[in-house]
Amino acid sequence: MYRPEIRVVDCSIRDGGLINQWQFSDEFVRATYQALSAAGVDYIEIGYKASQGLFDPQKFGKWRFCNDDDVRRVIDGVESTAKLACMVDIGRVEEKDIVPVAESPFKMIRVACYVRDVAKAIALCNMIMDKGYETTVNIMAVSTNHEREIDEALADLSQTSIPIVYVVDSYGAMYCEDITLLVNKYREALPGKTVGIHTHNNRQLAFGNTIQALINGANMLDASVYGIGRGPGNCCLELLLSFLQNPKFKLRPILELIQKQYLPLREKIEWGYIIPYMITGMLNEHPRVAIAFRDSPERDDYVKFFDMLTTPEPEKQIQK
Amino acid sequence: MYRPEIRVVDCSIRDGGLINQWQFSDEFVRATYQALSAAGVDYIEIGYKASQGLFDPQKFGKWRFCNDDDVRRVIDGVESTAKLACMVDIGRVEEKDIVPVAESPFKMIRVACYVRDVAKAIALCNMIMDKGYETTVNIMAVSTNHEREIDEALADLSQTSIPIVYVVDSYGAMYCEDITLLVNKYREALPGKTVGIHTHNNRQLAFGNTIQALINGANMLDASVYGIGRGPGNCCLELLLSFLQNPKFKLRPILELIQKQYLPLREKIEWGYIIPYMITGMLNEHPRVAIAFRDSPERDDYVKFFDMLTTPEPEKQIQK
Repeated sequence: MYRPEIRVVDCSIRDGGLINQWQFSDEFVRATYQALSAAGVDYIEIGYKASQGLFDPQKFGKWRFCNDDDVRRVIDGVESTAKLACMVDIGRVEEKDIVPVAESPFKMIRVACYVRDVAKAIALCNMIMDKGYETTVNIMAVSTNHEREIDEALADLSQTSIPIVYVVDSYGAMYCEDITLLVNKYREALPGKTVGIHTHNNRQLAFGNTIQALINGANMLDASVYGIGRGPGNCCLELLLSFLQNPKFKLRPILELIQKQYLPLREKIEWGYIIPYMITGMLNEHPRVAIAFRDSPERDDYVKFFDMLTTPEPEKQIQK
Repeated sequence: MYRPEIRVVDCSIRDGGLINQWQFSDEFVRATYQALSAAGVDYIEIGYKASQGLFDPQKFGKWRFCNDDDVRRVIDGVESTAKLACMVDIGRVEEKDIVPVAESPFKMIRVACYVRDVAKAIALCNMIMDKGYETTVNIMAVSTNHEREIDEALADLSQTSIPIVYVVDSYGAMYCEDITLLVNKYREALPGKTVGIHTHNNRQLAFGNTIQALINGANMLDASVYGIGRGPGNCCLELLLSFLQNPKFKLRPILELIQKQYLPLREKIEWGYIIPYMITGMLNEHPRVAIAFRDSPERDDYVKFFDMLTTPEPEKQIQK
């Protein structure tokens, strides 16, 4: 499939950092940036921006903060046409943390929010756009919202100049018919704007759902190297690039990056198709309970986990 | 999704045996049969039937042959409403190997063939049906055939009483639009017959493509426990059962089977999302070259494998 409007956003470091508190080495981040640039990826999201003091720098690596100096050091000297991006959460960043785009290594700042916070996201995006950045709103966990709530949020967004709005399957709960419904809904409610798609792989549908979204007209596609990302991870960048058949994308640098950097990392931290995440995806639940379970000595007792989440006794419910 | 006509076929032992030459222990096969029966799976395909003498019993385990005595021993005493199935290849089984259904533990014998062998498959199916069995034709590798060839094969099949014909994505090369085209084609060409779907997971699309096929009207769905199967494996049974929302299917026995039997096995033999299989899927090629590569000391040199399959020098081509 080839469509020239399509833009690919790699979020390996940002979403992958949710696994290891963004404690990637500079060498790892630089190798990722280098390979993604060689592969022709349009946007590289290198972490979250957050106000100093909100997170303990002893516990969180530097890609939780994305200080401009740290960013400049890892990208220094690398030839790249990719635009650098970072993400911000509502309430975790202040205006003073965002310098004008001319002084920043970043070109795009994406805003993640829940449906209930769309008004706050719009205000934050307006500030970000005023400083000269591209921006997006990524409405998380919409698989848990009623359509009425989503429609209201989209109506609000349609009144703004925010150019890109994402369908985000935070819990990896959706399948192709859900994707079609939402992408069509977003496109109808947001004329003139680009619709994006960000998927999770709980049920091995991240790539399939991304294809479905692009068939339905989504033009901003998130992916990550070897699918790195919290829990089951994301749509694999290597699958997406090989599918898009756009000559500007090169698969080979990504394969080299996987074998040299991501395979060794995968030995130390885990992501991918793992049954407890399949179960939270199937139940349309946040993966946090699966993450905690995978950190316990019972990590492979799938039956116990399944019973814990599906047995309707009151005392079991509380454990959730 | 719920549709009462849907039948699920587990092919864990049959397709999984392609990894380890069907050298599963009786205990493993019995545990699989027990759990699949408890889960409410409709058909359990326990191996291939083949004429004695065609394969060395020193090298191939008993599920390459499926002698009735071996089969009866592992299922003895297990409560089950599932129908037992096996597969036969064209030219690897003779009429004398197929006893009348009343004397056999099997209820269904499936025939796998390439498009060019459909006439032979029809003859074999007729013999199988004459002996009282249910049967299917599984046309392999159709991603490599021109539509004209497929249309001819379907026209021949439409003249028979064979009740079920499968779309088989042997190379894991298809995505949803290919599936829709083929399932619609099969349904139109084969009025009154059931269309089946058998997928491979090279590009993490096995489950998504199975969903697409069932949306398009396929009612016979293949899957395997934890996706076990040659190379990248198949559609995961646990994903499929959790999706179908039919109260006759139970997920819990499959989760228990995975944690007790399939996780330990996965430590010894490999299947799943592995880059060389992703590359053969992307290139619409047989996985044999990836299987050989994974057996070599360079197994994780993905760049070398990619170059080997995509560099157009004559001497490289020959290695393929």
